[in-house]
Formats: sequence, structure tokens, C-alpha cells
Amino acid sequence: MRMRKKKWAEPYLEEHSSFAFRDPIEMKGKWKEVLSCEKLHVEIGCGKGDYFNTMAEMYPETGWVAIEKDVSAAAVACKKSLEEYVNNNRKRMIVNDASNLLEWFEKREIDVIHLNFSDPWPKKYTHKRRLSSKKFLEMYQVLLSVNGYIRMKTDNKDLFESSIIYFLENGFTLTELSVDYRRQKHDEDAITEYERRFMELGQPIYLLIAKPVIINKE
Amino acid sequence: MRMRKKKWAEPYLEEHSSFAFRDPIEMKGKWKEVLSCEKLHVEIGCGKGDYFNTMAEMYPETGWVAIEKDVSAAAVACKKSLEEYVNNNRKRMIVNDASNLLEWFEKREIDVIHLNFSDPWPKKYTHKRRLSSKKFLEMYQVLLSVNGYIRMKTDNKDLFESSIIYFLENGFTLTELSVDYRRQKHDEDAITEYERRFMELGQPIYLLIAKPVIINKE
Repeated sequence: MRMRKKKWAEPYLEEHSSFAFRDPIEMKGKWKEVLSCEKLHVEIGCGKGDYFNTMAEMYPETGWVAIEKDVSAAAVACKKSLEEYVNNNRKRMIVNDASNLLEWFEKREIDVIHLNFSDPWPKKYTHKRRLSSKKFLEMYQVLLSVNGYIRMKTDNKDLFESSIIYFLENGFTLTELSVDYRRQKHDEDAITEYERRFMELGQPIYLLIAKPVIINKE
Repeated sequence: MRMRKKKWAEPYLEEHSSFAFRDPIEMKGKWKEVLSCEKLHVEIGCGKGDYFNTMAEMYPETGWVAIEKDVSAAAVACKKSLEEYVNNNRKRMIVNDASNLLEWFEKREIDVIHLNFSDPWPKKYTHKRRLSSKKFLEMYQVLLSVNGYIRMKTDNKDLFESSIIYFLENGFTLTELSVDYRRQKHDEDAITEYERRFMELGQPIYLLIAKPVIINKE
């Protein structure tokens, strides 16, 4: 979801560029060392950072990287991180387009990729921009660790249905799936503001976990 | 769904045993020839036969076999077939347990297997009776033709979610999936009485199409 442009966003992110990176090519292969963690989770499209920040509080031993290209949303997420959710120092942000993932992360460096309520890009000619489209899946396959996986949540039926087929057509299998994730209690997983709105309307949240079928040898 | 036992069922089926077979081992490998069709569709668990009979009317060139082990339900389906839906002669029934599939059908003899609103067998120790469980999938893989597939519809979330994983774990992939099949119009597919009830309640119908990944050589 796009949000209104915030004037303070750019200068704020500039000021906190050691937390919210713009193009952290120097971090490639070093995330776990710098964040002193064994597992690295990356959320792509973190929006205002609800999920990222809450999960980082819940799992302080894990390293968390949140990627968001929308500067205003990223600035909100960054501000929350630095002023409200201050109990985990094993997190960073990247304010940039996820198309550049391979420049920031080494092969096998990421344990879990989170896609939460990603833009569904409903028009057919925009499908290739979806974060679960072929181009991205090929990158994820390179970046995921041997037991790594993608965890995707969405409220969008079309995106969910298509994504399942994308995964299966591009070297992934599904190890878990829910067509109404919140019908059971899942205290282990943060509920974002956006997600709660759907739950209150009684609309289902869809979830899947996808793993590469064959790990690239290289 | 179980229905009340009907006294007339057994004698009726007995009377029409050339339409509603009990153990048609002699038909193995001969269905397409006997029904003079190029494609053979088999519905497992046809209940009262709404889907089977309607689809056979809609697709009279196709051969249809409906399997139902509940004698009372099967008798209702049989009666409808012989008294109401009389425009397609390319159909038969089998009143027996689908565990015996391999005795009635030859390898590669079936083009499409339909599973409609199958019993979800909710208790864990009964999951192995589900028509999409491993034991059945192994049979389907043997029986499906080279481009054959399984088409499954259900209103049951747990059954749907589990079945997806069963398929993926047992040599199938999904080529189509819907988490709310009836949100679009599908005139090509019959709506059963049972299905319509769910639609009227605004509850989603789940659909998947599964294909064997590797065709058994033999």
C-alpha cells in the first residue's frame, strides 16, 4: 500500500543511514557476523514495519532485515524501530528496490524470507512485479540457506492462487499452507494492523511456506 | 455424508446390476471400448450422483464412471441416472469401496479423477481413509493417463490444506488452484445441491487440479 509522501522521511533516513541502508553492498556475506546471529530473516516489502519490528522483539536472537522501497513507509518503520521497538539490536533496514537483492546478500545467506501482504499487482501486465513472480523466485532460490524457506501471508485470493503455481513451476514445493490462517491461534506470529483489519471483517488470511526442491550446488 | 438407509436400495441396485456394477473386474481395460468414448472420467464418492449425472449430460461424448460405496446413496444416484438423466449412455456406476480401484481399471485408463466434497475424516487416526491420502494417490498415479489429472473440490479447509501437502509429497504437482472457486462463474462445471448450500452461505469452495510429476514408466 502506498502512503502519502512524508517530507521528513528522506532527511530522517539520511540521518539514520547506519540503520536504514540504501545500498549495502558492503554487507553482502556479512550480515550474520555484523548482527551476531545464527539465523537471518528478511522481510521484503515491510511497509510501516509492524511485522518486522514486532517479530524482532519476539525473536531477539534472530537477525532481521526489512526491505522497503517506499521512502515514506520505510521512514515510519525506521522511526518505530529506533524509538519504540528498541529491544533488539539485531536488525537493519534496506530502503531500496528488492530487485537488487543479489547485490546485498550472499548465496545461502538468508534463512527465511517473509512476504507479508505484498502488492498483488492485479493487472496481468504487472504480474511480473509481484514479489512471488519467477524473477524473484530465482533470486530467492540462490539466497536461501539449505533449510531455508519463504513464508508468505496475504489477504489477496488472486495473488495467493497465482503464487502457489509460481512456486511449483519454479523449483519450489509447499510444506505448509493455510486458507484461513487466523482460524487457529498463532501466538508465534505477529499480527499487523493491516492484517487485523481483515480478521475483524472475518476475511481469511492465506499463508504458505515454500522451500526450494533442489538446492543449487554452486 | 451418510444418508438414512433405504430399504429399496439393495433390490433396486440388484435389478440394475448391468448399470451399477458391484465388482466389475471384467471391465478392466475395456471401459473406453464399452462406453465408446475417448476420454474416461471417474468420480470417486459420487453420493447421490448430482455431479456425475449433470456432468454426463453436459459432456455426452465423455465416458463417466461414478463410484459410491454407500448403498442408499448409490441407489439414489442410479435411479436418477436411469429415470431422469437419460441422455447419456456413456456412463456406469460402481457400488463398492474405492480401495479396489486397481481391480477395475487398467493402468493409464482414466483421464480425469473427480473428488467432490469427499468425506474429510477429521480425526487424525482416520486421515488415511481420505480419498486424497497417500494410499489413494499411489493408485491414482498408476491409473491416470499420460495427460490425466485429479480434480478436487471441497468446502473443508482442513481437508483442502492437507490434500495439497499430500499431493506435493506424493509425486503430484498442482496446475490450478482456487481458494474461492465460485467467485467466478464456471458454467463448465456442475454445481451440486450440497455445493449450492455453501455458496448460499457465502462460504468458499476450494478447488485444485493435480497432475503426476513423473509418469510411471510401466
